[in-house]
Amino acid sequence: MNWETYLDQHEGRFLSRLIELVSIPSVSTDPGHKADMQRACEWFTRWADGLGLHSEIWPTEGHPSLFIETPPVADKPVLLIYGHYDVQPAEDRELWTHQPFEPQVSDDKLYGRGASDNKGQIWLHCAALETLLASGKPLPIQVKLLIEGEEEVGSPNLPKLLTQHKEQLGADLVLVSDTSTAVKGVPTLHYSLRGIVIFEVHLQVAGRDVHSGVFGGTSPNAIHRMAQLVSRLHDENQRVVIDGFYDGVLPIDDREKELLARVPFDPEFYQGFIGCSELVGEVGFTTNERRWFRPTLDCNGIGGGFQGDGSKTIVPARAWAKFSARLVPDQTVEHVEDCCRRWFEAQTWAGKIDFRSDHGGPPYLLDPYGPLATYLEKAGQALRESFGQTPLLVRHGGAIPIVSQFQTLLGLSTVLMGFGSPDDAIHSPNEKFELANFRRGIRTSVRFLNALGSAAHQHFSIG
Amino acid sequence: MNWETYLDQHEGRFLSRLIELVSIPSVSTDPGHKADMQRACEWFTRWADGLGLHSEIWPTEGHPSLFIETPPVADKPVLLIYGHYDVQPAEDRELWTHQPFEPQVSDDKLYGRGASDNKGQIWLHCAALETLLASGKPLPIQVKLLIEGEEEVGSPNLPKLLTQHKEQLGADLVLVSDTSTAVKGVPTLHYSLRGIVIFEVHLQVAGRDVHSGVFGGTSPNAIHRMAQLVSRLHDENQRVVIDGFYDGVLPIDDREKELLARVPFDPEFYQGFIGCSELVGEVGFTTNERRWFRPTLDCNGIGGGFQGDGSKTIVPARAWAKFSARLVPDQTVEHVEDCCRRWFEAQTWAGKIDFRSDHGGPPYLLDPYGPLATYLEKAGQALRESFGQTPLLVRHGGAIPIVSQFQTLLGLSTVLMGFGSPDDAIHSPNEKFELANFRRGIRTSVRFLNALGSAAHQHFSIG
Repeated sequence: MNWETYLDQHEGRFLSRLIELVSIPSVSTDPGHKADMQRACEWFTRWADGLGLHSEIWPTEGHPSLFIETPPVADKPVLLIYGHYDVQPAEDRELWTHQPFEPQVSDDKLYGRGASDNKGQIWLHCAALETLLASGKPLPIQVKLLIEGEEEVGSPNLPKLLTQHKEQLGADLVLVSDTSTAVKGVPTLHYSLRGIVIFEVHLQVAGRDVHSGVFGGTSPNAIHRMAQLVSRLHDENQRVVIDGFYDGVLPIDDREKELLARVPFDPEFYQGFIGCSELVGEVGFTTNERRWFRPTLDCNGIGGGFQGDGSKTIVPARAWAKFSARLVPDQTVEHVEDCCRRWFEAQTWAGKIDFRSDHGGPPYLLDPYGPLATYLEKAGQALRESFGQTPLLVRHGGAIPIVSQFQTLLGLSTVLMGFGSPDDAIHSPNEKFELANFRRGIRTSVRFLNALGSAAHQHFSIG
Repeated sequence: MNWETYLDQHEGRFLSRLIELVSIPSVSTDPGHKADMQRACEWFTRWADGLGLHSEIWPTEGHPSLFIETPPVADKPVLLIYGHYDVQPAEDRELWTHQPFEPQVSDDKLYGRGASDNKGQIWLHCAALETLLASGKPLPIQVKLLIEGEEEVGSPNLPKLLTQHKEQLGADLVLVSDTSTAVKGVPTLHYSLRGIVIFEVHLQVAGRDVHSGVFGGTSPNAIHRMAQLVSRLHDENQRVVIDGFYDGVLPIDDREKELLARVPFDPEFYQGFIGCSELVGEVGFTTNERRWFRPTLDCNGIGGGFQGDGSKTIVPARAWAKFSARLVPDQTVEHVEDCCRRWFEAQTWAGKIDFRSDHGGPPYLLDPYGPLATYLEKAGQALRESFGQTPLLVRHGGAIPIVSQFQTLLGLSTVLMGFGSPDDAIHSPNEKFELANFRRGIRTSVRFLNALGSAAHQHFSIG
C-alpha cells in the first residue's frame, strides 16, 4: 500500500495513541511520578515490540533512557532521532482549561502537558516508521531512536550514556524535533546554535565593610569598582572590549545574508514582547544578526553591599556579578573563557578578582553550504512537500546542550526540525500541539527517511 | 571643702555607684528587660532625690526618658547634658570574659555592658554635679540632664519629647559625652559632624527578563545600565559629577587646616584597619579632609538579575542601588537630595528611573572660630587641665541624629566631649571603660561647669 494512503487511513489511530501517551503523567522532576515514568518508557517498548523492532531500556542514576532501532540498511545513511518522554510539571491546575493529563482535542489542537514538548514531536517519527513498515517495502535507511527521561531536568545522565553506548548510537546524522517553527505555521530548520560560557566574578577591595560616615570618601567601594568593570566591558559601539573575544567569529557571508533576508521580522512585535523602549546591540549589525551571528556578553546578576530593606550606610568591601557569553561558530569555549578570565584578572586596579568558571557549551553549525548541506536540503524538501510552504532556514541564538553533546561525544551533526508552534505554551498551563503540524510532521518524517534512502543527490536550494 | 579634695575622697564611692548602675541589664531592644529599664530609670531619680534635685520621668510610647535639673543661676549659661541609660544587648555570653551585667574592675578598667556606652560617660557628669553640690558653694550654672532609654534603638520617640518639652529643655548649649577620643588617651572635642542623605534608585529597562540566548545582544540590560549610572557618578578626580552637589560646601580655611595638622594620623594603621591596598578619594584633599570636610557619595548596596546559586542566563529587566551621600556644612539635605534626584531622573537613556528618598539629616558645625567658640575653648581648657594633655579639636565624618535634632528642634549647638576610648569594644563583647578616663572625666566636667560659670572670657587657643 502506498504510504500516503496508509497514513490517510491510520492517522486517527496515531492520534489516539498520542492521546494515550500524553495521558501518562511522566513528570521527571517529581519522585511521586516514578511509576508513571516507567509506564511511559514501557509504552514505547511495547510499541517497538509490536512492530518487531529491537528495543532496550538503558537505566541511569535517574530516569532510564530508551533505545529502539530498525535493522541496518547497507550503503545508506543511519539516522539517530532524539526525543524525550518526560514532561514538565503541571502545577497551576486552576489555570488549565482541561486537565493536563486528560488530553482533549479542540479546534484541531491537542491540549495536554507534553503534547508539543516532546511527546507529539517524538511520536510523529514513530508513526512515520510504522507507516513505512506497513508499506511492506524494506525501510529506506536504518533509524535509531534515543528517547530520554531527563530532558526537563537538564539531561544530567545523558553524556555518560552517549559515551557508554557510543558504538550502538553510531549514525550519520542526528534529527531533533524539540523546537518551534520560527513563525507560526511556517516550517523551519535551525542549522546553528550559539554556544555559551558562564562565569562569575567576585571582587574584594577591602577586608571589611566600613562605616560610610567615618570612612566614606577614603575607602575603596567594591560596588563602584564592579560598576566600572561591568560598564567597561562594552565600548561605545557595544562591542565587547575583551582582547581575543571575537577570535574565530565567522563573517556573515552573502548567502547566509540572503537566508536571513527571507525571515519575516517585525521589530515592533519583537520590541513589544521584550517591553523595552528601544532595541540595542553591536553597531553595524541588524537585530537578527546580533542574536544569531554575533557573540554577546551579558551580566545576568549582580549583588554587593546591603541587600535588605531600608538602609545600611556602609562602604562595601565585596561585590559579585554573574555573566554569560554567547558564542558563535567558530569560537571555542576554552578560548573565550580564557580571554574573559585574563581580562578580568588584569583589572588589578579594581581589587582582588576571583574569576569563577561555571559551565560552557560550544556553538553549533551545520554549514548550509558545506559538505553536510545535503541533509538540510533533503529535510527542507520533505518540509516543503508536506507543509506546501518553503521552510525557513535560520540560526538560533540559544544553546541546546544535547546538540553540543552529540557533536562533541559522538562526532555527529544535528538537523533541528521543530514541529512545535511558537504559541504552544510549552512549560506553561494549557500546552497544546497543532494537529496540522502533527499530520504534516508524520509526512515530513516519512519523506525525509525516503529522501535519505534515495541515491539521488540534488543540489540544495531552499525557497 | 575644696572639690578636688572631696573628689579624691569620694571617687571610690562614685565607682561603686557606677558598678551598681552597670549591673542593671537595661537592654532597650529586649521586651524581657522592661523591668530593668524601669530600675535603671529609678536608680537615677533616687540619686537626684538624694541630692534634692528636681527630677521627672517622661513616658514615651517606648521606654521613658529622665529629666533632672538643678536650680536656675541668674546671668549664667544653662547647660543641657544628654546621655542614655539603655545599653546594647550582650548576646554572645561565651565571648565575655566576665559576665556583662556583673561588672568587674581589672587593670584599672571597668568591664561590663554599658560601662563606656553610655552609663560611665553620663554618670561622670552626675558625679561632677554631686561633687560641686558637696562643696557647699552654689552651683556655678544651671544644669539640665536629659537621659533617654532608646538611644540603642534609634531614639524613635526623642524628637517628639524635644518638641513637647522645648521650654523645659531651654539651654545655651548641649554637652554630649557619647563618643570616643580620636586617639587612645588623647582628649578630644568634636565640633562638626557630616550630614546624610539616603536614597534608592530603581531602574527598569524592559517589561520582562528575557533569555540571554534568544535575545542577548539586542535587549537592553538593566545591570549594564545601572553599572553605567554608578560608574558615571564620579569623574576621574573622584569628584561627584551631579550638578549642584557641592553647593554650599565651605572651603577649608587655614585655621582649620592647622587644627587638622595636629591630629596624629597613621595612614598605614588606617589602611590596615580597612584592609585595602590603597586609600582613595577626591583629588586635591588629604584622607582626613576627605572624610571630615568633603561631601561624599557611596553606593551602599546593589542588586539585579539572578540572585541565587549557579546560573540563570537572562538579560535582566530591573536593577536597584542604594546610596548614601555624606554632607558637610553648609550643604542642606533638601538641596543635595533634589540635585541627586534631578541627576538620576535626567538619565533617561538608562531606562525608567524610580528615585526613592529615604531619610536625611543635616551636617552640624560649631564653628571653632565663630561666636560659640568660647564653649569649645572652656571645654578644651577643662580637658587639658584634667588630662594634662592638649585636647584634639576635630571634625567627625559620621552623623549623630540627636545632635541634629537638638539643632533643628531646640536651636541648640552641641559640644561633643567623649570619654570613651577607641578600644572600649562598645556594642561588642567585653565592653570596658577606662577608669583613668572616668576619673579625668569627672574632673573635666567640674572644671567645665565652673568655667561656664566664670565671667572671664578668654581667647580660645587649643594646643
